[in-house]
Amino acid sequence: MSFLAQITEPTLLLNETIARANIRRMAEKAKRQNVRLRPHFKTHQSKQVGEWFKAEGSTAITVSSVKMAQYFARYGWQDITIAFPLNRRQLPQIAELAKQITLNLTVTSAHDVVFLREYLTAPVNIWVKADTGYNRTGIKTEDTAALDAVLTELQKTAPHTFKGFLAHAGHTYKARNQETISAIHQQTLEKMRALKEQYSAAWPALELSIGDTPSCSVMEDFSGMDEIRPGNFVFYDLTQHHITSCCLQDIAVAVACPIVALHPDRNEVILYGGSVHFSKDILPLPDGGVIFGLVVPLTENGWGAPLSGTAVVSLSQEHGIVRTTPELMKHFKLGGLVGVLPVHSCLTANLMKGYLTLSGERLEHLSGVAL
Amino acid sequence: MSFLAQITEPTLLLNETIARANIRRMAEKAKRQNVRLRPHFKTHQSKQVGEWFKAEGSTAITVSSVKMAQYFARYGWQDITIAFPLNRRQLPQIAELAKQITLNLTVTSAHDVVFLREYLTAPVNIWVKADTGYNRTGIKTEDTAALDAVLTELQKTAPHTFKGFLAHAGHTYKARNQETISAIHQQTLEKMRALKEQYSAAWPALELSIGDTPSCSVMEDFSGMDEIRPGNFVFYDLTQHHITSCCLQDIAVAVACPIVALHPDRNEVILYGGSVHFSKDILPLPDGGVIFGLVVPLTENGWGAPLSGTAVVSLSQEHGIVRTTPELMKHFKLGGLVGVLPVHSCLTANLMKGYLTLSGERLEHLSGVAL
Repeated sequence: MSFLAQITEPTLLLNETIARANIRRMAEKAKRQNVRLRPHFKTHQSKQVGEWFKAEGSTAITVSSVKMAQYFARYGWQDITIAFPLNRRQLPQIAELAKQITLNLTVTSAHDVVFLREYLTAPVNIWVKADTGYNRTGIKTEDTAALDAVLTELQKTAPHTFKGFLAHAGHTYKARNQETISAIHQQTLEKMRALKEQYSAAWPALELSIGDTPSCSVMEDFSGMDEIRPGNFVFYDLTQHHITSCCLQDIAVAVACPIVALHPDRNEVILYGGSVHFSKDILPLPDGGVIFGLVVPLTENGWGAPLSGTAVVSLSQEHGIVRTTPELMKHFKLGGLVGVLPVHSCLTANLMKGYLTLSGERLEHLSGVAL
Repeated sequence: MSFLAQITEPTLLLNETIARANIRRMAEKAKRQNVRLRPHFKTHQSKQVGEWFKAEGSTAITVSSVKMAQYFARYGWQDITIAFPLNRRQLPQIAELAKQITLNLTVTSAHDVVFLREYLTAPVNIWVKADTGYNRTGIKTEDTAALDAVLTELQKTAPHTFKGFLAHAGHTYKARNQETISAIHQQTLEKMRALKEQYSAAWPALELSIGDTPSCSVMEDFSGMDEIRPGNFVFYDLTQHHITSCCLQDIAVAVACPIVALHPDRNEVILYGGSVHFSKDILPLPDGGVIFGLVVPLTENGWGAPLSGTAVVSLSQEHGIVRTTPELMKHFKLGGLVGVLPVHSCLTANLMKGYLTLSGERLEHLSGVAL
């Protein structure tokens, strides 16, 4: 039976060939540039997709919650970084994980280090979150006083090991061309290398970790870095395309949506597929408008290029409103299916709770696993 | 143990007293105005919260998907309207439900009626979706040709029963004061009554159903209507408060979030709580900015009033960034908890997959039930 025939409600299609090619390209770049690829698994959150990374040589991963770390530890991942500020309230779960695997935690202050020294006995590696300009969290690379304070505490934290500095240049997400990505990336590299220079006398083994998808996708120079941690690149999405991180053909997921109503008088099509399927992330248009997805035709082999002049222009909880052209309008049929390329694949995958591959196989997402 | 002590990660708190009061107020209004309250269950999607409605006399409900209908049918609801355009691809599931309960479907065209006549043998009631000005879907109340076409088909659809016209005046969500809500509501009532007049000679039993939360919350006049279907009012949220549907004190849910990093230099607090917990719905501010939630202090008895000058100003996948005042900044502690009133409680509840009441009881949400 075709994968299309089994679709009765909004379903997240995953093109395995595209996703594996995305993984391979990044793995090859990391090898070529002599950096460790520690992929972020928050985008797919799937034990099966994890295996595709293993096939390309990944042995160490990044996650953004303790729950994700527990999940992937269960499926054989033995070296996991939680790239999220230490959540003290999950100390018991962290302690349990630390006994099972090589667990790498992220701290944002000297207080965090003191807390781990006092309350966590099982050894972990500690990354210090460095803020290279994104301004979300972490210690600003210029804030020598705060950095010194953290490293002073780290000198007294046996059995825990100071691993190095970890940054996320999330401000590349505001880029709309590769020059901007390049400028941010070069600045990140410089700030990180300066950090290493500053502290390498006392900490000769300290490592540097960076890893936003835009920089890792379009840049080639990672000199001085020890690892990269991109995540979204496994699927990409319209946002990454807008940033110029990828081509539309690199997008590995599309939501198949049943067509439930037609409004030819205004060239609108109502999809079963709304904000509980896509999330409400928007893609800004040059004219000041926003869209929630691009519409692609579905075939037995996956999906085609986006339909011109056609987009998801509005979302309710379960409804998606597609606006199209008079010419294309007549191709939409009640009871038919179309695909929608998502604006933000991480959030869409989290909401959809699982995948259907083009060969009809169901893959797991952590959010669909019973609690 | 206090409900606060068991919270280790983002957790959706539900104040049962407030929710039951919201339900009771709406049930009393419906009784006073002599309309049937057929509450929409898409906001809470919880078997336990459903029981609170039963306690106030509800016997008939509204849902927005076949899956929700299956779920609530399992918990004893015998009269369910799926207020979403007919999804032909779920015909087998619809047929199964139609055998078990009084199932009310929504059609948006004569084609839908023909489809049901040809392919569905188990009897259902059929609502015709009327568009009173929201412009999302349904047949415009002025489009007599399309309405006639549907009703002509309905005359030949035995064993199915034409129930009446169903509208959702979702354009009240753009209102920012009660005058606007009132104007939209009056227009809805007039258009619906005109429909009834037009078709009551041929269909003397036809009913009228309306039901957005803003209108149902602030209006008293429902003359000529047979039922109302509000849903969000069970919890309300910042959007409803913004629309003037409710007071802040009527909001029955708040997300408890661990504090994971502090940035006193810029009066910012990093919460464990991001777009996978809240959704990305925004509340526009008068100054053109947007926020993703208001911050409330948590106590053993629930939560207090929103902290002044304090809001969730940015969301990443797992991070929430709170901006506050220098005076309040010092009250945020690493490892502590704060509450966040959500912008859109339907989407937040769907993402959070369950509730924690103030007495420490865990309640179910359909999205957290194993597939």
